[in-house]
Amino acid sequence: MRDPRREPSGDRPAPNAVVGRVSLYLRQLESFQSQGILTVSSSQLGAALAINDAQVRKDLAFFGQFGYPGIGYRIDELITALQRILGIDREWPLALIGLGNLGRALLKYRGFRNRGFRIVALFDSDPHKIGSDFEGMTVRSLDTLAEVIVQQNISLAVLSVPAEAAQHVADQLVASGILGIFNFAPMPLIVPASVSIVAVDLSVQLEHLAYKTQTTRGGISFVG
Amino acid sequence: MRDPRREPSGDRPAPNAVVGRVSLYLRQLESFQSQGILTVSSSQLGAALAINDAQVRKDLAFFGQFGYPGIGYRIDELITALQRILGIDREWPLALIGLGNLGRALLKYRGFRNRGFRIVALFDSDPHKIGSDFEGMTVRSLDTLAEVIVQQNISLAVLSVPAEAAQHVADQLVASGILGIFNFAPMPLIVPASVSIVAVDLSVQLEHLAYKTQTTRGGISFVG
Repeated sequence: MRDPRREPSGDRPAPNAVVGRVSLYLRQLESFQSQGILTVSSSQLGAALAINDAQVRKDLAFFGQFGYPGIGYRIDELITALQRILGIDREWPLALIGLGNLGRALLKYRGFRNRGFRIVALFDSDPHKIGSDFEGMTVRSLDTLAEVIVQQNISLAVLSVPAEAAQHVADQLVASGILGIFNFAPMPLIVPASVSIVAVDLSVQLEHLAYKTQTTRGGISFVG
Repeated sequence: MRDPRREPSGDRPAPNAVVGRVSLYLRQLESFQSQGILTVSSSQLGAALAINDAQVRKDLAFFGQFGYPGIGYRIDELITALQRILGIDREWPLALIGLGNLGRALLKYRGFRNRGFRIVALFDSDPHKIGSDFEGMTVRSLDTLAEVIVQQNISLAVLSVPAEAAQHVADQLVASGILGIFNFAPMPLIVPASVSIVAVDLSVQLEHLAYKTQTTRGGISFVG
């Protein structure tokens, strides 16, 4: 399921914060590209995100050498490289576990598909939901998890179950061979080191909004 | 509705990226505090988040002088200061617009309340939803928006309406005197410069998860 060409060039994986910034660099580069800009310097890229140029260069150096002396970064080339590094140069089939309000909202969320993430299998523990259809897919029992994950080559799961069920379902996902869990349940999960977890915390963005209204600068901001 | 003591010390508001990092610093400091740690240096704080120490010092310098020579930062003092800067040293009453699946999920989301954000008023345009109760609150018509926003001293709105309705509702929110919109609708909104917007993009976090599974480092990560 892993492709050695997708590994970062260094021996160790990049720290969380570096990966988060790479996503921001990618979005900013796409914005530059849509404006017809062809090349950018580390200080220009950093200035657009209020990150100093040394940090930009250090972050990108984690993954290889991308800049050209006297030119800077070629935007199309750097976009392709960062997409490959993040793994979004391909489709990621996702399993969605938990068809409550949040799960059903996530199923309709358009932002995932734009970046190559596609929900291809639905699971719930509720007998009233198993067998029913959402967005053209049939909800399956968690008993079929392992089978479906292998069949559909799924490596990531979106977990939108109540807090009290989250650890139990996470255990089932781990046993089924999942590699990563996108956790919306408001509690930390305990999983083996071989399984990755990203927990969503919407309050960070809301803090950002609170700060902005206090400074009444206004304007539009997209944060992750 | 604004308190001059909450203004940042500088003349200009901090860039988006700086504010995002301040939220991360705050969470890391709270984590240190829960471990019984009393003081921290900029390099220790940075190391925990893979941000270089010069960047940490520069970010914090936006808001004032917090460190002590030979000691570093006093954690309790810096937490209090950052909470005040972000505006989360007080309660923020929120209006929630749109009681579809996402809206109902957000209404139950526990992460907001922990940080002082509390949904106090619900609105929808659907006549079948107006008058019905969710979590002990009655859904109101958008016609009452201006009145309720003033009465309940609401400055922030969570917008979870379909894309095609988002701009129209945003216009109504602006006309009602809202200061900030937390936008879950998958489209950019056009608002006056005096109104702040933060748009939620869940795909950034999912990219992070995809990267992590490729490097199979595993482990637990909380990202905003």
